Amino acid sequence: MRRALDAAREATENALPNPRVGCVLLSPDGATLAVGAHHGAGTPHAEVEALSRAGAAARGATAVVTLEPCNHTGRTGPCSDALIAAGVARVVYAQGDPNPAASGGAARLRAAGVEVESGLLAAESEALNLAWTHAVRTGRPYVTWKLAATLDGRSAAADGTSRWITGPTARLDVQRLRAGCDAILVGTGTVITDDPRLTLRDEEDAPLPYGRQPLRVAMGERPIPDDARVRDAEAPFLHLVTRDVDAALAELAAREVRHVWLEGGPRLAGAFLGADRIDEVVAYVAPALLGAGTPALNGTGIGTIADAVRLDLTDVTQVGDDLRMTARVRKDSA
Amino acid sequence: MRRALDAAREATENALPNPRVGCVLLSPDGATLAVGAHHGAGTPHAEVEALSRAGAAARGATAVVTLEPCNHTGRTGPCSDALIAAGVARVVYAQGDPNPAASGGAARLRAAGVEVESGLLAAESEALNLAWTHAVRTGRPYVTWKLAATLDGRSAAADGTSRWITGPTARLDVQRLRAGCDAILVGTGTVITDDPRLTLRDEEDAPLPYGRQPLRVAMGERPIPDDARVRDAEAPFLHLVTRDVDAALAELAAREVRHVWLEGGPRLAGAFLGADRIDEVVAYVAPALLGAGTPALNGTGIGTIADAVRLDLTDVTQVGDDLRMTARVRKDSA
Repeated sequence: MRRALDAAREATENALPNPRVGCVLLSPDGATLAVGAHHGAGTPHAEVEALSRAGAAARGATAVVTLEPCNHTGRTGPCSDALIAAGVARVVYAQGDPNPAASGGAARLRAAGVEVESGLLAAESEALNLAWTHAVRTGRPYVTWKLAATLDGRSAAADGTSRWITGPTARLDVQRLRAGCDAILVGTGTVITDDPRLTLRDEEDAPLPYGRQPLRVAMGERPIPDDARVRDAEAPFLHLVTRDVDAALAELAAREVRHVWLEGGPRLAGAFLGADRIDEVVAYVAPALLGAGTPALNGTGIGTIADAVRLDLTDVTQVGDDLRMTARVRKDSA
Repeated sequence: MRRALDAAREATENALPNPRVGCVLLSPDGATLAVGAHHGAGTPHAEVEALSRAGAAARGATAVVTLEPCNHTGRTGPCSDALIAAGVARVVYAQGDPNPAASGGAARLRAAGVEVESGLLAAESEALNLAWTHAVRTGRPYVTWKLAATLDGRSAAADGTSRWITGPTARLDVQRLRAGCDAILVGTGTVITDDPRLTLRDEEDAPLPYGRQPLRVAMGERPIPDDARVRDAEAPFLHLVTRDVDAALAELAAREVRHVWLEGGPRLAGAFLGADRIDEVVAYVAPALLGAGTPALNGTGIGTIADAVRLDLTDVTQVGDDLRMTARVRKDSA
């Protein structure tokens, strides 16, 4: 199973809107017949890739898969059928499929006489697909809010300047994490004021080698100018003409967005937090003080300390001169 | 010298208003004759303690000291004279004495025919006495600003509540660091609003084993009620009736305060930062979000990002559920 997880990890950083999956086919005596992994939407599922590599040797084999084989026909046929057709004798999977539309694979395999075991390293597989798992379970995209602020929590100075609060290493790190999401969301105010490109580019404006660009999304009721940079040809753009957080997320879910990278401004982040729709926070804290200017977060409607939204720190890493703190929102606290 | 530094460290956490000093006396063949250390104001200097332990054996010995032996008569006589009188042949010290009133010890020893060397592990000795070195060099106390805030930089909620932003482990850690200073400074507004005790006590209000209580200082023009808790008998209290940061620091320096622990509120911290009188920041950041309420820092007068006060992170430590970030203010940036 560790090798199947490694295969999933190595295949791609981001298979969204699909999960990252790896599969190892073993002969009855334990020898490796083939390894497969899913490389992203439109490409074969991990099981199918492994089966096609193993050929006739798959008969009587054990398939070790990081996720319960699917039972639905989407862009590809159901993997459970493919495993049965290839004569696989036993399937061991880690995480059960949380997707109501895709689950039932284990039952179908059992009905066809295949021996099925599950649960081995399930948490690791789930961690590999945190946003995807959340999205298919809840029907809503997983929302990561990114903020960059001074030690005293300001994301811009009193005159509106914010370039640069954090250093170049932190800014490049943001690009890397953006690439792991399938949509970058900002408020219409940010688009109108800053005219950002919202594409994955380095400091010299050269494209970064992340393969694809996330969907660029502006949310809010102000019109976006025709010549705004988010409308250029480099990546798709979507204007969600609403202030309603759940309406926006539903619209994104309908477009198969599983992981939203929310960048602000402070009031948009406040609206998401107030609606309990932030799942994770990635905070870049610069060792700097302003003592005036725009706070990183505003308009949450939280009035007293007992109602503060509590988080669990999952990682703290120094990134250049800055500190990156990653934390998950405690779902019982908000 | 490492043993002398260890002796200084072990003797006391806090010798303020004096430096922490250690001394090892070695015989001509390198055997240890005696070890001494300074235990705080009113007790013998490290050299004198070591000499009294070595007795007549000190004749012809080498004294290894972490700080240049003093040349002035304060609460005790000059150590350079004591070393000369004991017949010490050679003195090796780490850090030169930055105190204009105490320096000249090396010259006096040389004039008396004692061989003198200096500079070995000088940075370590200075690190041991960071606040003291700064205070005697500049004539101003070293100022550490402590803040406790949410990830979005709020030190209180919109309704004024701030208990508790950080957890019990962080709050106990604050007591430990307070004990390393010789004054705790807050604004008169904080004293009137919160009526804090400003003594070193644990969560159950029991005294902590730190030996002594720092001076409690309220700064500002509002009168402090007679029944304010800062006026109780547990520790001395000083009301500095001024809004001028340098006047306040001069008054504290005159009282031999070397290290001020500044606790706020936000406007007092802003005044200190605006006057370039914060040397170090200890920030307790709680993994929590408010999005409303009092910012940790206010009224600095900083208007644009280029004027942000930049710091160098020196330590990041998880303290219970919270994060403690320690940083020094870059003196070229403010």
